[in-house]
Amino acid sequence: MSLIVQKFGGTSVADLDRIRNVARRIAKTYDQGHNVVVVLSAMAGVTNSLMDMAYKITDSPAKRELDVLLATGEQSTIALLAMTLNSMNYPAKSLLGCQADIITNTAHGNARILEIGARRIKELTNQRQIAIIAGFQGCDADGDITTLGRGGSDTSAVAIAAAIKADTCEIYTDVDGVYTADPNVCSKAMKLSRISYDEMLEMSSLGAKVLQIRSVEFAKKYNVPVHVKSSFCEEEGTMLVDEDSDMERLVVSAVTHNKNEARITLKNVPDQPGIAAKIFTPVAEAGIVVDMIIQNTQPGGLTDLTFTVPETEFNKAMEIGKIVAKKIRAGEVMGDKNIVKVSVIGVGMKSHSGVASKMFSTLANENVNIIMISTSEIRISCLIEEKYAELAVRVLHTAFGLDKE
Amino acid sequence: MSLIVQKFGGTSVADLDRIRNVARRIAKTYDQGHNVVVVLSAMAGVTNSLMDMAYKITDSPAKRELDVLLATGEQSTIALLAMTLNSMNYPAKSLLGCQADIITNTAHGNARILEIGARRIKELTNQRQIAIIAGFQGCDADGDITTLGRGGSDTSAVAIAAAIKADTCEIYTDVDGVYTADPNVCSKAMKLSRISYDEMLEMSSLGAKVLQIRSVEFAKKYNVPVHVKSSFCEEEGTMLVDEDSDMERLVVSAVTHNKNEARITLKNVPDQPGIAAKIFTPVAEAGIVVDMIIQNTQPGGLTDLTFTVPETEFNKAMEIGKIVAKKIRAGEVMGDKNIVKVSVIGVGMKSHSGVASKMFSTLANENVNIIMISTSEIRISCLIEEKYAELAVRVLHTAFGLDKE
Repeated sequence: MSLIVQKFGGTSVADLDRIRNVARRIAKTYDQGHNVVVVLSAMAGVTNSLMDMAYKITDSPAKRELDVLLATGEQSTIALLAMTLNSMNYPAKSLLGCQADIITNTAHGNARILEIGARRIKELTNQRQIAIIAGFQGCDADGDITTLGRGGSDTSAVAIAAAIKADTCEIYTDVDGVYTADPNVCSKAMKLSRISYDEMLEMSSLGAKVLQIRSVEFAKKYNVPVHVKSSFCEEEGTMLVDEDSDMERLVVSAVTHNKNEARITLKNVPDQPGIAAKIFTPVAEAGIVVDMIIQNTQPGGLTDLTFTVPETEFNKAMEIGKIVAKKIRAGEVMGDKNIVKVSVIGVGMKSHSGVASKMFSTLANENVNIIMISTSEIRISCLIEEKYAELAVRVLHTAFGLDKE
Repeated sequence: MSLIVQKFGGTSVADLDRIRNVARRIAKTYDQGHNVVVVLSAMAGVTNSLMDMAYKITDSPAKRELDVLLATGEQSTIALLAMTLNSMNYPAKSLLGCQADIITNTAHGNARILEIGARRIKELTNQRQIAIIAGFQGCDADGDITTLGRGGSDTSAVAIAAAIKADTCEIYTDVDGVYTADPNVCSKAMKLSRISYDEMLEMSSLGAKVLQIRSVEFAKKYNVPVHVKSSFCEEEGTMLVDEDSDMERLVVSAVTHNKNEARITLKNVPDQPGIAAKIFTPVAEAGIVVDMIIQNTQPGGLTDLTFTVPETEFNKAMEIGKIVAKKIRAGEVMGDKNIVKVSVIGVGMKSHSGVASKMFSTLANENVNIIMISTSEIRISCLIEEKYAELAVRVLHTAFGLDKE
């Protein structure tokens, strides 16, 4: 008998029929003798429409109150699922974030989990009851409702799994696992049966939407075995596990691409100490996360400074760039949204050389020009023109031996 | 400076525009220097559609979970109103039933308030903040969400007013006060500027939907001055107050009618001790509330036993009636839904005689036959054929001097 956390996303609980399917899946696990703890998202679309309603009132709804509003989404699904299981004669009880003692800081809209008491979860599990917990939400020390940000239910599930020392945390979603590349772009993409926490972290931060990045951090920190699988079929998905020697046989595990990037260049920046801080401090203060930065100093003391930001922040970042350029007597400010970041990821890189040169030459063979490069221990990313995105993913996928068959 | 509780019903918060109107009304009271505590219902229709969803899952949804689901209705409106007030630069914070320490028993769906801590309400009020509290909901000793039954927000408001010793509790609704009769039936009905708690209790139990009956019980018990008024106009409404000598000048304060009654007759019941218990015990066990009962024993030891039940329970009650009749060897069971209960109410009756005879003769003058009669200290009710309902209300209204002008 195992203790299993099962998390179902918004598309899995999108209507009463799907909720019934979810109930059947839970019942099956329960009937196999396992203890099940369930974590749910809101019905697909509900969080967005609640958000829309709030933004009809004001451009900047009070964050505390937005959390109270958004939290109703998960509250509804846990009640509906508990009712469904009860009507099938399974003992199940819903618990709100607060009732499950999911204690967070007070950063409404993007709260961090500080601690999970889980007293009531354990009580229910000990009574062979199915605890059904609202994902995405917690409460702060004052008992005020907080939410964990988009995709926060994943984090709820993994954190709960860690707190109750679950044997496994199953994340049911609308994809059936983690792929070596986006299957919509690369028809030869393979589903990975296993992936290391670190690789998944890189993939999440590169825009793979399979798991919220913080859930992967939690999984890594507490060594929670996470199983990503589809709620619409019975197939095995992808296991997130600790890195092992076996994994290093594959040098590269996946190729990702992220079109949600935009590039901004400040031309002819005076090359003085402290100039970078003058540029990036106002950007950071505007809450814009800068991804890649390159600085290319010309002879003569002037430099071109280029950085990338999420495409959604492009207009704001351009405005700030222009103000700063004027202040520091730099030249023109240029922007470009038609770019894509293509990355190869693999823990095997740590012990293999030649990955970068292989990546560059593969792209060069297709006449794809590389605009910027950034790397981590287990990742190499190249910024290229957006029109080459699909081509680049496919040739890299082939070059690193990831094509199926 | 007063401490004022303002409660707004479902039609008053039915959409974002109306919520804005409510916010303006609250802001006005706040700007006059008063401290305001707000209690809200769910948007009109929301509770019903949540209920429908639950009943699509099963005929008997788990009550604990139904409460979790229904509680989202008020949770949404308090968040939206708090956001609206915040966007108008008024300090406001929402509180769920649980956060406001509205402690109830565990009778999910029809919970009774045991205690109101109100620590956070008082804290907010002391800081000149507007506390916006979810009506209809509380939580039990385990921290599980409970709801107070239909119209429960009225009870929340009055109970909170009692707990924080508010100077007045304003109930904003879609009618502009309490009338001497239903204005849809009796064009000469007058709005009462004041009514005693006891009269209002009788009116509520007779089906007047202005206030949930338990809210009136609370108001009477804790002597809370309740002001029922319209949220759509500025007119004065009706004050619920303790009975005073002034009131007794009017013998009758109101004429009510309730069409939601049905009559069941068991013919030729053997007139034996204990027979009534044999009939009414199974009815009570089915959760059916019997209103009027008459027994009319004929010479020869057989009796006809007639009672009334809510029309919604008619079919169930008929079934039980037939089973019981067979068991106790009674005769035919007859039912009639085409009846109405017409009542006259007034604290003045305590000190005036002749009210009953005036009522009977007024009805007799119009050839209205009285089927059953029941009375309390301040009420006389007659069951008559439903087709005479409007006529009866109008002639009684005139006879007791309630017509306007």
